[in-house]
Amino acid sequence: MLSCKQLNNELHGTGLFFPIDPGADASIGGMCATRASSTNAVRYGTMRENVLGLTVVTAQGKIIHTGSRARKSSVGYDLTRLFVGSEGTLGIITEAIVKLYPQPEAISAAVVNFPSVDDAVRTVIETIQMCMPVAQVETMDDMMIQAINAYDKMSLRVAPTLFFEFHGSETGVAEQAQTVQEIAAGHGGQDFDWATRPEDRSRLWAARHNAYFAGINMRAGCMPISRLAEFISETRADLNKSALMTMMVGHVGDGNFHVMIRLDPESTAEREEAEAMNDRLVARTIAADGTCTGEHGVGIHKMRFMEAEHGAEALSVMRQLKQALDPDNLLNPGKIVPN
Amino acid sequence: MLSCKQLNNELHGTGLFFPIDPGADASIGGMCATRASSTNAVRYGTMRENVLGLTVVTAQGKIIHTGSRARKSSVGYDLTRLFVGSEGTLGIITEAIVKLYPQPEAISAAVVNFPSVDDAVRTVIETIQMCMPVAQVETMDDMMIQAINAYDKMSLRVAPTLFFEFHGSETGVAEQAQTVQEIAAGHGGQDFDWATRPEDRSRLWAARHNAYFAGINMRAGCMPISRLAEFISETRADLNKSALMTMMVGHVGDGNFHVMIRLDPESTAEREEAEAMNDRLVARTIAADGTCTGEHGVGIHKMRFMEAEHGAEALSVMRQLKQALDPDNLLNPGKIVPN
Repeated sequence: MLSCKQLNNELHGTGLFFPIDPGADASIGGMCATRASSTNAVRYGTMRENVLGLTVVTAQGKIIHTGSRARKSSVGYDLTRLFVGSEGTLGIITEAIVKLYPQPEAISAAVVNFPSVDDAVRTVIETIQMCMPVAQVETMDDMMIQAINAYDKMSLRVAPTLFFEFHGSETGVAEQAQTVQEIAAGHGGQDFDWATRPEDRSRLWAARHNAYFAGINMRAGCMPISRLAEFISETRADLNKSALMTMMVGHVGDGNFHVMIRLDPESTAEREEAEAMNDRLVARTIAADGTCTGEHGVGIHKMRFMEAEHGAEALSVMRQLKQALDPDNLLNPGKIVPN
Repeated sequence: MLSCKQLNNELHGTGLFFPIDPGADASIGGMCATRASSTNAVRYGTMRENVLGLTVVTAQGKIIHTGSRARKSSVGYDLTRLFVGSEGTLGIITEAIVKLYPQPEAISAAVVNFPSVDDAVRTVIETIQMCMPVAQVETMDDMMIQAINAYDKMSLRVAPTLFFEFHGSETGVAEQAQTVQEIAAGHGGQDFDWATRPEDRSRLWAARHNAYFAGINMRAGCMPISRLAEFISETRADLNKSALMTMMVGHVGDGNFHVMIRLDPESTAEREEAEAMNDRLVARTIAADGTCTGEHGVGIHKMRFMEAEHGAEALSVMRQLKQALDPDNLLNPGKIVPN
């Protein structure tokens, strides 16, 4: 199957694009299987919202088609959504019908920094609660900015920073930037900078694009947006107790954030300390009605949190589904539902 | 559980609202179970997109919680989407966490009529393909307008008509109305009228709100938007072969439309003729990659189309799911999957 970059290359010149891009050049099939997301999920949604239908080979070797090209359907069980995010354990996805979007008429970017992470996150909450159609909003804490300055030889002000991207009409993006600037000002935001020309947007966003190279060992979770500010403060306080270098970066518009921990992979002590921080992070996330993984599936490392997040009974329903569709456990055995 | 109207009453004064309202004052639980939709699904989505989590009692009497308040999650099978639309056959929904939206700053309405249904529908296609965040767009054919004139003693121009509603900022809704007027003009649209004051909006939309009282015996389907114009012309041609009075009205922004057939319920001949027209309508919809029901579930009357729409193999996967979660067939037996 095409990767998301290949798909967008194919679409070149049509005026359409596929918005979801998890970063690495993922295949559309893998993105379906892991219910992948993107930094612009706040506007366009994740694979959950953007897959209209699938072709799936079942464990019994049958080929089924789920969904259709219709934008909505209420006929029968939602098999599409069942296979999206099932990580190959219920069937093998061989084709996908995805939703395309028109290229926005105008794109603009804005960067603004804040006295505290709390101020930055409250700005995001207020923006989202106004239902502003922001395409992306990313936050970085001061530790992250410091790492980027060191890695990229940049001289950004070391302060919690928000990166915005707006899609819309010319007047629409100007209006969005204006509104965000006003909201940010109410939370001590300063050095507000915005740009519409591609080269200026690239300059503004360069730091954000390099964040992942500057950091390693990301842990991602997702939260109800209303609890995010408090949660991020608590997490920062917990991370500060460790001698390990930690950074936070998040697609905060949809409550999603990453914690990065720099450690020496050879050091058992550092690995154990990082795992313990991660366990506390996940416990706090789930206690606050969040999820241990907002993006790209459960994988192996997070399977141990499945019961804490879903409860034993819901996990048992998942096991019933797995046994019903794959009684001989042929499909990606041992994933999603612990055997 | 609250109905959608009760929920919106509870929200009064908070600045928030729940956008989905299928018309009759449906309960939120029933709306979850039938994956209900609304005339504004083009902007806000259906219950599929707006239920974040559920509490469900299983056939084994266990209580499970699906999803969370986080806006996105990629952890495990999407049980929320499995129960949404399952019509009570997989579990009993007792609680739902739904997404609320801020009341739009401004709302405006527009009405415009066209030389032909084809022109009207092409206007909608172009509007949607521009990714305009239209909140509602409804179409009515000339037969429907005629029925409304008779029923409401109104004197609307008897022509295919589009009704738009825009939500956004003051400048945003003005810009949307302006763009729609330009698109409509390119397809022969005339008598363009738009209003922002609530009383003027009500006047413009009065005809639309009475459409359902003026018609009876609705059949609803949903189509890929790109095929809608051709499809509606074919359907009108087929309906015109009948002596029965037929009307079309649709939430065309998401490819959804209703066909209404007036008949004497005592007349076996008229019922049979209407059923045959309906069968041809569904066959055309499915052949064009659409669905026999875009809204509010399968129910009893449409169950016979399940195999035509999904294929025998996909239907058999649905049956496996039903048997896995409800082996004794206790929950709403005989629905969704024919026994």
